[in-house]
Amino acid sequence: MSIRIGIFGYGNLGRGVENAIRQNPDMELAAVFTRRDPLSVKLSTPGVKVYPAEAAESMAEKIDVMILCGGSATDLPMQTPRLASLFNVIDSFDTHARIPEHFARVDEAARAGGKLAMISVGWDPGMFSLNRVLAEAIIPEGRTYTFWGRGVSQGHSDAIRRIEGVVDARQYTVPIEEALSSVRNGEMPELTTREKHTRECFVVAEEGADLDRIEEEIVTMPNYFADYDTTVNFITIEELRANHSGIPHGGQVIRSGNTGNGNQHTHVIEYSLKLDSNPEFTASVITAYARAVYRLAKEGNAGCRTVFDIAPSYLSPKSPEELRRSLL
Amino acid sequence: MSIRIGIFGYGNLGRGVENAIRQNPDMELAAVFTRRDPLSVKLSTPGVKVYPAEAAESMAEKIDVMILCGGSATDLPMQTPRLASLFNVIDSFDTHARIPEHFARVDEAARAGGKLAMISVGWDPGMFSLNRVLAEAIIPEGRTYTFWGRGVSQGHSDAIRRIEGVVDARQYTVPIEEALSSVRNGEMPELTTREKHTRECFVVAEEGADLDRIEEEIVTMPNYFADYDTTVNFITIEELRANHSGIPHGGQVIRSGNTGNGNQHTHVIEYSLKLDSNPEFTASVITAYARAVYRLAKEGNAGCRTVFDIAPSYLSPKSPEELRRSLL
Repeated sequence: MSIRIGIFGYGNLGRGVENAIRQNPDMELAAVFTRRDPLSVKLSTPGVKVYPAEAAESMAEKIDVMILCGGSATDLPMQTPRLASLFNVIDSFDTHARIPEHFARVDEAARAGGKLAMISVGWDPGMFSLNRVLAEAIIPEGRTYTFWGRGVSQGHSDAIRRIEGVVDARQYTVPIEEALSSVRNGEMPELTTREKHTRECFVVAEEGADLDRIEEEIVTMPNYFADYDTTVNFITIEELRANHSGIPHGGQVIRSGNTGNGNQHTHVIEYSLKLDSNPEFTASVITAYARAVYRLAKEGNAGCRTVFDIAPSYLSPKSPEELRRSLL
Repeated sequence: MSIRIGIFGYGNLGRGVENAIRQNPDMELAAVFTRRDPLSVKLSTPGVKVYPAEAAESMAEKIDVMILCGGSATDLPMQTPRLASLFNVIDSFDTHARIPEHFARVDEAARAGGKLAMISVGWDPGMFSLNRVLAEAIIPEGRTYTFWGRGVSQGHSDAIRRIEGVVDARQYTVPIEEALSSVRNGEMPELTTREKHTRECFVVAEEGADLDRIEEEIVTMPNYFADYDTTVNFITIEELRANHSGIPHGGQVIRSGNTGNGNQHTHVIEYSLKLDSNPEFTASVITAYARAVYRLAKEGNAGCRTVFDIAPSYLSPKSPEELRRSLL
């Protein structure tokens, strides 16, 4: 019997999960839930129904794992705890500073309902976090660096769009090559925020807008741009559509440190991602972990988990014997 | 109370474990066991005793985890099952083809004694295996490549040393740059053994030895060299000592594959290691997993495990709350 997956929220991430399910023969898409008019949503999977979000609560028996595909700002803090008492759930909550609070609420709800929940699954938080923990445990005396990009930051693009006179915008986070090289060489440099990444902005302005003012508002924006070297390029809407419609991303977690009697030996551990589509990769990670959620729930576990709590074999459709024989 | 570690076998790996324990404040070296004369072994940790191997069996109460530091050819197949019924144990058994058989024997012994065992811990098998499983689960439609080097292969160096007229030798496994680039670009090439790695040999020959014959014996040696482009450099013993005394290694596990409705997006996942000292890094991995063995045993688990069965949080000295707050 396949694992019956529900998708709650059908944007880029939801569509990514739908595609990922097709690559996992032990899973099937059971239903999609949306806050939009269900009739306006066209799935790419034949025979699957779209329901209004409110209908989810009556369908607990039909879904083994509900994958929440909403945003971290307002959707997931409400939705994940609410659904976690009814379903085994998984989300990609990525507001790092609020993870402990989100974890506590989801954990409480999941335990109350006897369900298994996972939060903050994706690549960062997610695979990058897992690699930070493993690398730090293996090389206790060292430093860990995380670089992002080159890739589109949705949050920074949105921040630019909120400036008066801006029609649309795309922001790329770009790691600084010298910093990356130094870290990869095991030099363990001390790096400021400005020394690690630059920010490149492609902005479509309204006709007649004051471009100097827009540029000034971008580069001085606190939290988002003020601590970085930022370049602003004004382009046409046609150029934006032609050259900046993708959502690529990626980055590296690199730890280097020393071992030996006298710490004379340097080691560098690097985990690197180059992603053509950020939401599709995130969806693929979540879908693999949905298998772990299903199995842990079947074993009788309840409460909230993160990638730190899941043994690798739970992600794979292969049996433990087959994994040891073919991949160890 | 710290985790009391025993080291069974005091060669390069055993010394690496001894150094790694010093970097983990929640561990202490309890005892070292050797088949040599204990008086001939000088530890770098003050106050710790060296015992003959046979003394181990009477010291089960004094050691929480026994780390087996012998070789995979003849030591571990005997030692790990024998000690696994008395101690929680961990080894770095690396004969890939014989892992299922070794696992079965260790599992049986550990269950009989109510102990927890882990086998095949290090970087390959070990961290590379873990990354193969994770990457394959995340991107089901793709290909996984493992490259090794540039680094010293002990097995290949030994094979050269067995040739008549050879005094000493060092063999480097070298990944082929074009193959690596193609894989990193997500091209998913079909690669033969010869297209992935070359082998560089540095050989010290006896005075008057037939160098042409030695070279011919090396490059045509089945399993070890015949399937590779191999270069042989004859050097003096002084050059060997001056330039080839280190044991560096490393490599990459790279998986690339596609996602999307129509598989139009390519993703590349790479896990890469650059190691100044192969045995010290292996020792550091084993020591981190010894913490997991200790905790799993304390929770009442018994039997054999591999890296596939261990959740990342078990490796870290930090609490789950601290991990979620600082590294997720």
